[in-house]
Amino acid sequence: MSKSVVFEVDVMFGDCDPAGIVFFPNFSKWMDASSLNFFMQCGVPPWRELVKTSGIIGTPLLEIHTKFMQPATYGERLQIHTCIVEWRDKVFIHEHRVQRGSDLLCEGRETRAFCIRHPQHPERMKAIAIPEHIKALCQ
Amino acid sequence: MSKSVVFEVDVMFGDCDPAGIVFFPNFSKWMDASSLNFFMQCGVPPWRELVKTSGIIGTPLLEIHTKFMQPATYGERLQIHTCIVEWRDKVFIHEHRVQRGSDLLCEGRETRAFCIRHPQHPERMKAIAIPEHIKALCQ
Amino acid sequence: MSKSVVFEVDVMFGDCDPAGIVFFPNFSKWMDASSLNFFMQCGVPPWRELVKTSGIIGTPLLEIHTKFMQPATYGERLQIHTCIVEWRDKVFIHEHRVQRGSDLLCEGRETRAFCIRHPQHPERMKAIAIPEHIKALCQ
Amino acid sequence: MSKSVVFEVDVMFGDCDPAGIVFFPNFSKWMDASSLNFFMQCGVPPWRELVKTSGIIGTPLLEIHTKFMQPATYGERLQIHTCIVEWRDKVFIHEHRVQRGSDLLCEGRETRAFCIRHPQHPERMKAIAIPEHIKALCQ
Repeated sequence: MSKSVVFEVDVMFGDCDPAGIVFFPNFSKWMDASSLNFFMQCGVPPWRELVKTSGIIGTPLLEIHTKFMQPATYGERLQIHTCIVEWRDKVFIHEHRVQRGSDLLCEGRETRAFCIRHPQHPERMKAIAIPEHIKALCQ
Repeated sequence: MSKSVVFEVDVMFGDCDPAGIVFFPNFSKWMDASSLNFFMQCGVPPWRELVKTSGIIGTPLLEIHTKFMQPATYGERLQIHTCIVEWRDKVFIHEHRVQRGSDLLCEGRETRAFCIRHPQHPERMKAIAIPEHIKALCQ
Repeated sequence: MSKSVVFEVDVMFGDCDPAGIVFFPNFSKWMDASSLNFFMQCGVPPWRELVKTSGIIGTPLLEIHTKFMQPATYGERLQIHTCIVEWRDKVFIHEHRVQRGSDLLCEGRETRAFCIRHPQHPERMKAIAIPEHIKALCQ
Repeated sequence: MSKSVVFEVDVMFGDCDPAGIVFFPNFSKWMDASSLNFFMQCGVPPWRELVKTSGIIGTPLLEIHTKFMQPATYGERLQIHTCIVEWRDKVFIHEHRVQRGSDLLCEGRETRAFCIRHPQHPERMKAIAIPEHIKALCQ
């Protein structure tokens, strides 16, 4: 396991669809923001800084799996509870629980890898072994 | 199985993130658009019409599962190949394959239900049995 | 003039474009959210409640005019200072100043009208005279 | 004046708001995509290529001014007619007319500048004189 960090989101009118509820890809956007916030709260610099010292450009997604239990709408404040539930050699698994107070609205798992620019093909990315010092910061 | 329908998307600059590639929740947005296009190509009216005759307000998501193989960027044209791989009593499973020509970029499965407004609580939705005439149109 | 209300936004990775800065239409989205927050802070119910008692479905945009002075990026917290600078018979002018602390990043004016569903054509909207009780709440 | 180029957009469900119509900042996103398409149709490479040969990273916005005449909704196809109505030393003015067939829905003007990374402060941008060869391609 890892630290658990909470990220808050105020749902905007423009986040909602013609059914009047949050358009579901926004939950993925917020989980992504909560992932970055998790690392920054653990003491990892934002990607635009980290790339200068380590070449790491971020943690792109390999896979997402999300369940939607209850809708949300504009004017509501949500909390995203984020942690890392598994570290493998080259990937890690984020878990995000989107809550409105104690109500669980949505639950997601992301598989991500730390990536650098591919040495030969800079337009591509290349996964690297999970940096030990970053892993240590998150625990 | 069902019919298979292709929906095309031109990737815009504003769909891309600081890494210069499509921000991943946009793939979910496009799969959602391809789902609606699938039903319209099969002869089902858009939700805003269907609600008037049948009370059906759409097919909200219960679950998504998406794998990201290759990135895409602005100025590219993508094709989303969409079909229904399974019909259950109250839910169905959409499969979407996002391709750039013959390259597979992203693959997703969505679990959806046809929903009406809840009779007693109009601010909530209620899943109904899959309408046979809609199922017939899709096959 | 009117009350002035501040709305805060945490810039997310997904709000930024390949240049690494906020994709400019997001400033419009945030100004829109700040407009709704302005009315709610003044005591006006959210549109989904107001429509039930007054028929008002919101305050659609007729015109926007925005100047961009400085960029912002993810991980930053912005403040949107919102007021109403002019009331006319059927429209009002919102002013939004997007700041990062004391730095002014972006400034916008929106022309909006309170609208109801058109009595004969419910798929269209119809501007109404500005409700006096709402105007009073905002001053 | 300049060439006039048309860019087509299929409105998606996720582009629409709780009123069932296009959420207005999406018109700005589409005008931005139409601006990039305009340059590419005139023979200018996409920004990610141009930056390698000329240092130009794009044409950031200084100002936008948009009027909204009629709404649009999902399932509709729109055309954005884009040209350049004025060239000044360091900025140019784009005009975009968003139409649904012959119906004009929205009209916008953008003030933009060609920018490079600031030589001393690479995190900032710097406007340059409009490159004559690009101007020539657009006429």
